[in-house]
Amino acid sequence: MKRRLLTPGPAPVPEETLMELAHPVGHHRTAEAKQVLAEVLDGLRYVMQTGHDVVALTCSGTGAMEAALINTVPPGGKAIAVYAGKFGRRWHEVWNAYGVNVVAVTAEPGGAVQPQQLAQALADHPDAVAVSAVHCETSTGVKHDIAAFGKLVAATPAVFIVDGISSIGAMECRTDAWQIDILATGSQKALMLPPGLAFLSISPKAWQRIESHSPPAFYFDLKKYRNKLADPDTPFTPAHTLLRGLRRSLHRIRKEGVEAVWARHARMASAARSGVQAIGLELFASEPAESLTAVRVPEGVDGCLLLRKLEQDYGLKLAGGQGDLQGKIFRLGHMGYIDFFDVLAALAGIELVLIDMGYAIEPGTAVAAAQRTYARA
Amino acid sequence: MKRRLLTPGPAPVPEETLMELAHPVGHHRTAEAKQVLAEVLDGLRYVMQTGHDVVALTCSGTGAMEAALINTVPPGGKAIAVYAGKFGRRWHEVWNAYGVNVVAVTAEPGGAVQPQQLAQALADHPDAVAVSAVHCETSTGVKHDIAAFGKLVAATPAVFIVDGISSIGAMECRTDAWQIDILATGSQKALMLPPGLAFLSISPKAWQRIESHSPPAFYFDLKKYRNKLADPDTPFTPAHTLLRGLRRSLHRIRKEGVEAVWARHARMASAARSGVQAIGLELFASEPAESLTAVRVPEGVDGCLLLRKLEQDYGLKLAGGQGDLQGKIFRLGHMGYIDFFDVLAALAGIELVLIDMGYAIEPGTAVAAAQRTYARA
Repeated sequence: MKRRLLTPGPAPVPEETLMELAHPVGHHRTAEAKQVLAEVLDGLRYVMQTGHDVVALTCSGTGAMEAALINTVPPGGKAIAVYAGKFGRRWHEVWNAYGVNVVAVTAEPGGAVQPQQLAQALADHPDAVAVSAVHCETSTGVKHDIAAFGKLVAATPAVFIVDGISSIGAMECRTDAWQIDILATGSQKALMLPPGLAFLSISPKAWQRIESHSPPAFYFDLKKYRNKLADPDTPFTPAHTLLRGLRRSLHRIRKEGVEAVWARHARMASAARSGVQAIGLELFASEPAESLTAVRVPEGVDGCLLLRKLEQDYGLKLAGGQGDLQGKIFRLGHMGYIDFFDVLAALAGIELVLIDMGYAIEPGTAVAAAQRTYARA
Repeated sequence: MKRRLLTPGPAPVPEETLMELAHPVGHHRTAEAKQVLAEVLDGLRYVMQTGHDVVALTCSGTGAMEAALINTVPPGGKAIAVYAGKFGRRWHEVWNAYGVNVVAVTAEPGGAVQPQQLAQALADHPDAVAVSAVHCETSTGVKHDIAAFGKLVAATPAVFIVDGISSIGAMECRTDAWQIDILATGSQKALMLPPGLAFLSISPKAWQRIESHSPPAFYFDLKKYRNKLADPDTPFTPAHTLLRGLRRSLHRIRKEGVEAVWARHARMASAARSGVQAIGLELFASEPAESLTAVRVPEGVDGCLLLRKLEQDYGLKLAGGQGDLQGKIFRLGHMGYIDFFDVLAALAGIELVLIDMGYAIEPGTAVAAAQRTYARA
């Protein structure tokens, strides 16, 4: 059976990148390795739309976010965590682990935090030194208005830290124009690489805060990374073959053009939403992201069985809900090395499995609706 | 030109492992992925010779050592750092970054710390709660007597943390028999994988200390890793394709047998030492490790030029000295997917370059000496 990976991370990796990963290992402290790193950081600046420094860490996205969170806020300092789901809540927990005084600004799962909520929190807590927010909340498929948040935070002394792990390379994100001080992303989502690397863009405002404080950290001490940037290198052994692979994937993004990449994802997302809605399913996210579509499992349908049958009968690997949302939603990832025809395959599979499970729909409804939306977009 | 990587990390990766890395990415939260992780952890227990828990972290060896060091010693607590070179000194620096009171027990570069030095330190500091030591100090090629250290530390309440990053999979190391509480290793040395993963074996004595304290940590909070071990999983997205590759490399070690692997490395190391000594070069390490051979650059020879010519003229990538040792020593790695004939190639190249640089030796001296030693070993 042909298998299709349609989860909101990891996402499929282009063949030329996979082939690159099979090349013999080289040493990571050579002129050639520095050239790879320089090209990768430059490509990331392009994808992130920033002129700021970018640093590469060998860890998951959580590790990079932890580095951002702990290098900017000292123990006992105050920070605002904006979130509406599992991943955003994690940044609250990280700060808790370091004794930071956290103000939570939240919305119910499926909802999005509104800019006026953040404005109020900033007014109530002028002593907050950092604000964290999630661009695309992978657990619920919700998109936050990072541009609006950025404008609010920029008017304060706080640094604005954005989790772009599942958005960068798929969703419009203009780091500098939106006044994001630290943007974090990971390798295994829309950057089209296996997991193992994560990245931070860091603004001068953020560096100033980072320089003013010494966190309890060594591997995640961002000053060590900054010190290696002039002749680009890393303070610790990097996942060098993944960097080499990323150079290939970033080249693909640059060839297509990042704005075209964003438009393609928006078009795929819009087609996916039309498809599921045409067969009576409801979106879970009030403000849906372009990286994934989260869908409520209809009344009377076993959500876990639905996912199992998609995988076992049709080779389609989608994701379920996490924690409390297990069995209540499913998530269709459409980011990175995914095209509209893969989305169409997912919709066709969903129709077939739902029919098989006794859910009354006319075959072809979802795929035709998606095709109409895609053709008109 | 055919290229040979003969540095003390990264080390070459077997072809079947490289091919595995080019396979399409799968999801890391599936029964299949758990099976991969279970096999990897089991293979690592075999290579480390332990029945203890093993956890996998996505980071460099430094990250894993940091996790070991900070989860066992609270800020203000006392620890003993045993070292004789750059990498061992790093563990002292990590503890410093977390406000630990560190007692250093050291030897000059090229030398090894003697067991009686540690015995004295343990007697002087009965309140030390952890001891760190390096099995193979990669920067100098020195081996420490971990079995003797282990016996000393086991008689105290302290946990014994060993950096086995460049030894595990090459040099005899019996975690349980030698009473090592935490053994750290990385993927890119004798485990025959690209960089990106690191591992810790953790004894019940170490878990007890870890459970008693909450370090300022999230990604490196070892309790989070322990909580995922029952049905083996990882708390954060792992470098899953590297785990898949490691399964292959570990299978290779198991097929050869770990004692045979150790014997092969000892034989290669002994041949390498004979070879360089036969042309009048001196070993840098008083007690040489089996993973690499560190050699003093002879008087009047430009050590940096020697390395450059080895690489440019003959495709042989060896390593120089680090920090103060730059230009004074060179290091020949012979660990992992390296055999005696690769070592012979390195020795032949060293002869040719030295002759080219005007150093008077009879061609064939080093290779013949190495061959004699290898044949008799």
